[in-house]
Amino acid sequence: MKLTRKSFRSSVAGFCCTWTVLMFAQTASAQLLSFSKQELIDYTAQNPFERLPDGRPKVPDALIERARDISSEEVWAVLQAKGFNNQYADGFQVLHPGKMMVGRAFTVQFMPLREDVDNAAQAKAKQAVGKRLFNQTAIDMLQPGDVLVVDLFGKKVGGTIVGDNLFFYVNQATHGGGLIVDGSVRDLNGISEIDMPAYFRSVDPTPIGNVMLTGINIPIRIGNVTVMPGDLVVGDREGIYFVPPQFVQEVLDKADETHIHDEWTKKKFAEGKYKSAEIYGSPSDPKLQQEYQEYLKKRLDEIHKQRSSK
Amino acid sequence: MKLTRKSFRSSVAGFCCTWTVLMFAQTASAQLLSFSKQELIDYTAQNPFERLPDGRPKVPDALIERARDISSEEVWAVLQAKGFNNQYADGFQVLHPGKMMVGRAFTVQFMPLREDVDNAAQAKAKQAVGKRLFNQTAIDMLQPGDVLVVDLFGKKVGGTIVGDNLFFYVNQATHGGGLIVDGSVRDLNGISEIDMPAYFRSVDPTPIGNVMLTGINIPIRIGNVTVMPGDLVVGDREGIYFVPPQFVQEVLDKADETHIHDEWTKKKFAEGKYKSAEIYGSPSDPKLQQEYQEYLKKRLDEIHKQRSSK
Amino acid sequence: MKLTRKSFRSSVAGFCCTWTVLMFAQTASAQLLSFSKQELIDYTAQNPFERLPDGRPKVPDALIERARDISSEEVWAVLQAKGFNNQYADGFQVLHPGKMMVGRAFTVQFMPLREDVDNAAQAKAKQAVGKRLFNQTAIDMLQPGDVLVVDLFGKKVGGTIVGDNLFFYVNQATHGGGLIVDGSVRDLNGISEIDMPAYFRSVDPTPIGNVMLTGINIPIRIGNVTVMPGDLVVGDREGIYFVPPQFVQEVLDKADETHIHDEWTKKKFAEGKYKSAEIYGSPSDPKLQQEYQEYLKKRLDEIHKQRSSK
Amino acid sequence: MKLTRKSFRSSVAGFCCTWTVLMFAQTASAQLLSFSKQELIDYTAQNPFERLPDGRPKVPDALIERARDISSEEVWAVLQAKGFNNQYADGFQVLHPGKMMVGRAFTVQFMPLREDVDNAAQAKAKQAVGKRLFNQTAIDMLQPGDVLVVDLFGKKVGGTIVGDNLFFYVNQATHGGGLIVDGSVRDLNGISEIDMPAYFRSVDPTPIGNVMLTGINIPIRIGNVTVMPGDLVVGDREGIYFVPPQFVQEVLDKADETHIHDEWTKKKFAEGKYKSAEIYGSPSDPKLQQEYQEYLKKRLDEIHKQRSSK
Amino acid sequence: MKLTRKSFRSSVAGFCCTWTVLMFAQTASAQLLSFSKQELIDYTAQNPFERLPDGRPKVPDALIERARDISSEEVWAVLQAKGFNNQYADGFQVLHPGKMMVGRAFTVQFMPLREDVDNAAQAKAKQAVGKRLFNQTAIDMLQPGDVLVVDLFGKKVGGTIVGDNLFFYVNQATHGGGLIVDGSVRDLNGISEIDMPAYFRSVDPTPIGNVMLTGINIPIRIGNVTVMPGDLVVGDREGIYFVPPQFVQEVLDKADETHIHDEWTKKKFAEGKYKSAEIYGSPSDPKLQQEYQEYLKKRLDEIHKQRSSK
Amino acid sequence: MKLTRKSFRSSVAGFCCTWTVLMFAQTASAQLLSFSKQELIDYTAQNPFERLPDGRPKVPDALIERARDISSEEVWAVLQAKGFNNQYADGFQVLHPGKMMVGRAFTVQFMPLREDVDNAAQAKAKQAVGKRLFNQTAIDMLQPGDVLVVDLFGKKVGGTIVGDNLFFYVNQATHGGGLIVDGSVRDLNGISEIDMPAYFRSVDPTPIGNVMLTGINIPIRIGNVTVMPGDLVVGDREGIYFVPPQFVQEVLDKADETHIHDEWTKKKFAEGKYKSAEIYGSPSDPKLQQEYQEYLKKRLDEIHKQRSSK
Repeated sequence: MKLTRKSFRSSVAGFCCTWTVLMFAQTASAQLLSFSKQELIDYTAQNPFERLPDGRPKVPDALIERARDISSEEVWAVLQAKGFNNQYADGFQVLHPGKMMVGRAFTVQFMPLREDVDNAAQAKAKQAVGKRLFNQTAIDMLQPGDVLVVDLFGKKVGGTIVGDNLFFYVNQATHGGGLIVDGSVRDLNGISEIDMPAYFRSVDPTPIGNVMLTGINIPIRIGNVTVMPGDLVVGDREGIYFVPPQFVQEVLDKADETHIHDEWTKKKFAEGKYKSAEIYGSPSDPKLQQEYQEYLKKRLDEIHKQRSSK
Repeated sequence: MKLTRKSFRSSVAGFCCTWTVLMFAQTASAQLLSFSKQELIDYTAQNPFERLPDGRPKVPDALIERARDISSEEVWAVLQAKGFNNQYADGFQVLHPGKMMVGRAFTVQFMPLREDVDNAAQAKAKQAVGKRLFNQTAIDMLQPGDVLVVDLFGKKVGGTIVGDNLFFYVNQATHGGGLIVDGSVRDLNGISEIDMPAYFRSVDPTPIGNVMLTGINIPIRIGNVTVMPGDLVVGDREGIYFVPPQFVQEVLDKADETHIHDEWTKKKFAEGKYKSAEIYGSPSDPKLQQEYQEYLKKRLDEIHKQRSSK
Repeated sequence: MKLTRKSFRSSVAGFCCTWTVLMFAQTASAQLLSFSKQELIDYTAQNPFERLPDGRPKVPDALIERARDISSEEVWAVLQAKGFNNQYADGFQVLHPGKMMVGRAFTVQFMPLREDVDNAAQAKAKQAVGKRLFNQTAIDMLQPGDVLVVDLFGKKVGGTIVGDNLFFYVNQATHGGGLIVDGSVRDLNGISEIDMPAYFRSVDPTPIGNVMLTGINIPIRIGNVTVMPGDLVVGDREGIYFVPPQFVQEVLDKADETHIHDEWTKKKFAEGKYKSAEIYGSPSDPKLQQEYQEYLKKRLDEIHKQRSSK
Repeated sequence: MKLTRKSFRSSVAGFCCTWTVLMFAQTASAQLLSFSKQELIDYTAQNPFERLPDGRPKVPDALIERARDISSEEVWAVLQAKGFNNQYADGFQVLHPGKMMVGRAFTVQFMPLREDVDNAAQAKAKQAVGKRLFNQTAIDMLQPGDVLVVDLFGKKVGGTIVGDNLFFYVNQATHGGGLIVDGSVRDLNGISEIDMPAYFRSVDPTPIGNVMLTGINIPIRIGNVTVMPGDLVVGDREGIYFVPPQFVQEVLDKADETHIHDEWTKKKFAEGKYKSAEIYGSPSDPKLQQEYQEYLKKRLDEIHKQRSSK
Repeated sequence: MKLTRKSFRSSVAGFCCTWTVLMFAQTASAQLLSFSKQELIDYTAQNPFERLPDGRPKVPDALIERARDISSEEVWAVLQAKGFNNQYADGFQVLHPGKMMVGRAFTVQFMPLREDVDNAAQAKAKQAVGKRLFNQTAIDMLQPGDVLVVDLFGKKVGGTIVGDNLFFYVNQATHGGGLIVDGSVRDLNGISEIDMPAYFRSVDPTPIGNVMLTGINIPIRIGNVTVMPGDLVVGDREGIYFVPPQFVQEVLDKADETHIHDEWTKKKFAEGKYKSAEIYGSPSDPKLQQEYQEYLKKRLDEIHKQRSSK
Repeated sequence: MKLTRKSFRSSVAGFCCTWTVLMFAQTASAQLLSFSKQELIDYTAQNPFERLPDGRPKVPDALIERARDISSEEVWAVLQAKGFNNQYADGFQVLHPGKMMVGRAFTVQFMPLREDVDNAAQAKAKQAVGKRLFNQTAIDMLQPGDVLVVDLFGKKVGGTIVGDNLFFYVNQATHGGGLIVDGSVRDLNGISEIDMPAYFRSVDPTPIGNVMLTGINIPIRIGNVTVMPGDLVVGDREGIYFVPPQFVQEVLDKADETHIHDEWTKKKFAEGKYKSAEIYGSPSDPKLQQEYQEYLKKRLDEIHKQRSSK
């Protein structure tokens, strides 16, 4: 556990890609619940970005980085205006509360083991991929920038998607992307030392068991959210937002304005001359309103310059 | 609500069948999570019985009737011996506690509404079936002998699969089969007057909403059970067993023996001459053991005669 | 407990009225949280009916009787259309599940005992009414047609608003109106024998204690509802609706239509010729639509005649 | 399950007694937690009645019968006056809510299975009694008038003290005494048909397992009560009181008065001339007070006569 | 969020005072539940200190500072001796666990929105204060040394009293006093960076909504506590004590003794020569007892000197 | 609370031992539930180590130190292979999450107070030990290396085994061993400053009360574990394992291998050349398998050398 993660990031990525695409095509037909690349494309047709080889929308790396500065509230503001009220999940144990999680959703679904069904699935898998499907099948398909999102239906005992070894691997493969599991993890002591964000319902010493893998990169449910593969995942101290790709740009642009608004609001509060209602939500006095608009414009310009100079 | 159910049972059945098969083929391709007739057959390959036109195993009516006399414990005994430990769900409100529920599982799945996904699904549905998918789409496909099994992910507000009108319809269409919903129902007063078994998590006055139908007759999860379409559903005061078709005959035969065993055990207890451990689990005294074996044989013969004379 | 309730109903009522009005004026000024008759009138200004002497809206007896036939769903339909989404409370133990509760809300609030505050309140009460305030102060102000609605903040031990003696009294004083307590009751065996509807969170053998009475006929909170004195209370197997007086007439008229709609819907279902979606929510076929409209008109006429002939 | 219980009651009793005493002495030394007859006598030294052969206080049959008419509230009144505030347990599923449970506590304790400890215990048991200890060891020691009180630490799966066969046996052996288990039962359908009171936390189809029997007739904890063998058990719709033998007579005598008080109170309420506070808790008017005292005396006399004439 | 709080503290205070008093008088008459300055004085008549302009007891700043060193246990000891057993609330998320919260209670109450009532209230508010009442109305009345105590009845979604902007404002206006909300907050990431103590039930991204402000500086209930405006609030890692002003001095003096007692006890334990029972609760050996008394006297003298020299 | 713990460690130990042995013999006979030294030896007969004077198995100090490096998962692997599936408890608040707890279980049991029983017990105690039994009786028997394990049946109010003074004492007496209580503690602020591991269910300001001490060093239940005195306690961030002494050596040896396995696994992952399934659980490629075996051997040698050189 003394190893550091940064040195070996780059080498993994290229290797992963080809392997994963092949795997995806093959495993899709061997899963109990299949969701083909074409279906994925159809159901995420509003995606304005490129796609990953497996068909998932590819929110650009630059936007993912910008998302590291936003908060749940800022996502909420845009999504509720669009009528998307079921994109937020909370109630998790948060591994590193001060650390934001951002990335592209890579979804995995498990269901309670049922041997007749699992045998049929594994027979199909043997035929398609030459080996049985299990949690590492999915983990080995992860890409840099992914967040592993797992439906283990809240299972504690035997619902441990990873222990510290595989957590270490996920961290590497995703370049620190992150993990969300509606289920549990093992070896919290070991996991705590690895600097990747993670959200889980509970912790248990048992290994994963009494379940069967039923889908990779299919639509899954986490709390009250229907998660689609490729959603932008944004996790803070409170919970997790799953942002449909078509709203990512607007969410981020709006967040810039909100940051400036908060900056200005606190600055005015700090002057000690105003009641909160004179300044917040928006200033009532036209002169203050004008002051704010000028501040907003100036700061937006600065931010845009700063960004383009990178 | 003063109407009686029995008089109009027969007329519905024939009508339903053809319509439903067509619907199934068409809706399957329009669901977010599709599960084709062939997949259903593949994953329930151990089914020893005929199949319904939609591909589901058809546990024979005669066996369904026999299942009306068994208990959870009797199912448990066979299934655990087979290594099937995830077939039981409980924690429901039971509408008519004294009334057994038996039938073939007809599964439906909902997920939290997400407009981008739902619009894509509804567009596909319009193209395939000429109209949008919603709870009545599934309800209108029900067959006599079916139990409607619905995954509404425990939702209370807006998770009400039916009110008393549709509950009435389900009762008619299934010939009193039953309803299980990991979600809620509306209009408990009205529903209570209808003599169909039902299991639900809660009750709410709101109609179903903020969800989308994502699958009909696909594998779903109810509590800790992976339910397959066509499973034999057995519900008593305690909870619900989902019996894979390949085990139905054995479960029922074993239950016959258990009934006789219990009959004899209580008879001996009633004599007041024995400690419980002398008689139960099985008699230790060889003479009592013989007495029991003879009793068992005699009663089994009687039962078989009675059954064949029907 | 062998006594019957009906014989002595009439005598109580007249007596109560004068006494109560005096009590109300006097206790109002002695409560920790006062709410004067004028305030009550101001905050329920939309009440279209007469008022009780204590200022509460008086939903007419005839409408209360009609409300005995409606369901939560029917109330929901009207109130949500008005934007009143916080009028429903559930999660109670229901004493007599098959028995509807209807009546006018008489509210009482308790808070955790705090001697310095209670002493001040009791001193004021002594001065105003000559005695201290406690649960019977409120109970003795109940009128025929009232439902006693009590905020005991979910308290179990010591949160028992009544035992069987006072429950008997409430039944008499309200003419079988009913009881709702966000708290507990004592002596469930005794209470079960009395034929008055009641909703409570729990049951405990301790008498009420460690609390102080802080308000009579003030606005209180029950679950997610702000209850106003004089609201029409409608309780069924599921939960309780608090209907603001201004909506009572519309709720009842709409319920008439819904009853007829359900009657017709089930009749058509019973014919066994239709899919549910052809009939319910509303018939798609214009001919069926017309049939329904005629049926609705005919039955409404019948109902109105029947009502006016009473 | 068609057998009736009453015909064979008498025969069992005599048989049980001798056998049980021997068993008790022998098993006591073989239990993980032993509690000798002498210890039982020492710790229940205030018992004013005879003792059963196993050392438990024997509350007389006549008093047990009288206890069938009392309520939790009446027990509470006496016990809290004595400073015994930890004698009440609730939160159980009640099998037959309208049926009182009364009898002498026969306690059994289980703990989570631990093979090294259980092997040592079973070796001791083999030596002492010639066979291993399990749930039927305790059940076979039950006496007429006993209530079986079992600590299974709230266990659901595998915490099922009995199914319908052994429940039938317990009913016979105790002459309808009853069962309390801080754990679960099996076969609720079957059990529901047997007319013995029972209180349990949950129901499960699994048989008892993964536990070890650690004590028979030792002090155990049920909820917030330390239950001593021989306590008078009184169960109503609400919960269960465990009455130390030394308080039984006083509880019953006080209950007589309370019954009369309630009778009179309701009679006065039924007259419709009084506010509740004029009559209850006790009448304020000296003339009413006198009326009540006379009524009390008269009715007590009647009761005593009625009792002595039996 | 880069702004520091200390530089602008002083300027806000003076400004607030006058404005707030006017507001208080005006809003009191416009609240659903009013509690006039005179009522506040009457119900806190035992207050030994001056009062704030709004009528609240003003526990002196010096005592508030001393309270920063006490613990829940020390408050408990005095209050239970007075018979005040309902002054403690816990079960909150604590924002900065190592940081004590002390200050004067400023109470706010919300209830579920009900438009008929809210419209009446807002009309009254418009007339009285010229604008509608909402959460910022209360926040803008806060004084240095206040702790904002809010009853939002445990509401999560829409129960967010503040986000990071208003939290920043509250910190400034109260000079770091603190926040308690039986409800939620927004923007935990932002709030975590601000060094003010806060206690809340949950966190949610939605803004406050579906509620109405019903009282400012009225008696409210937080958990099992009736909180009076002006109570001394003491919050540690465990929970919150609300100390009636009349007990503040005694609590603090007693805490001095307890600190010295704990200091001495641990010193003796550290010597390694004593069993715990020889030293704690109080030393049994008269010589140790004397040693302790001398230590107590000496240390008290030191503390008093130190305090008076400030 | 400014005192440091290390300086006075040694002096306490010797003193404790003699005193404790005497106490143990005497208190055993005065406890409600007694468990003699001989019984303790019989039920832990598989203990391969020496015993403490009170009869408990004495896992050697060196092994305890080694246990400081293991995790729940490593204990799980050995115990489940032995069929010991009930040795793990979780769901506690963990005082110092990053700090491992290891030591020998010293068990204490409380039950709800019942004065008749407690008086009998105290009379026996007075006779045997000259004073009454209470929490400090047990605390004063603690030895260096012990972990105090207390069954307070989840009690919060009045279930506080220690406050900061006694916590300080326990830390000293056990040399930082630790505390587990299925109950609560007082004075969390004070306790947080003391560097001893602790696991508790809740925190409350009340002192321990309304309970009676019923056993010291008897078998007790913590969650789903039967804890035997002398078990090796291993607590990490997740929960607590109670390891029967006979498995300690194997657990530790296996943990050495697991540590090396994890080290190697992460090293290989860090190389970025492998899919997780190629390396973990065990390498599929024979060459990698060999590499691992050699690494394992080398590292084991190093560890053994390092250990023997200490």
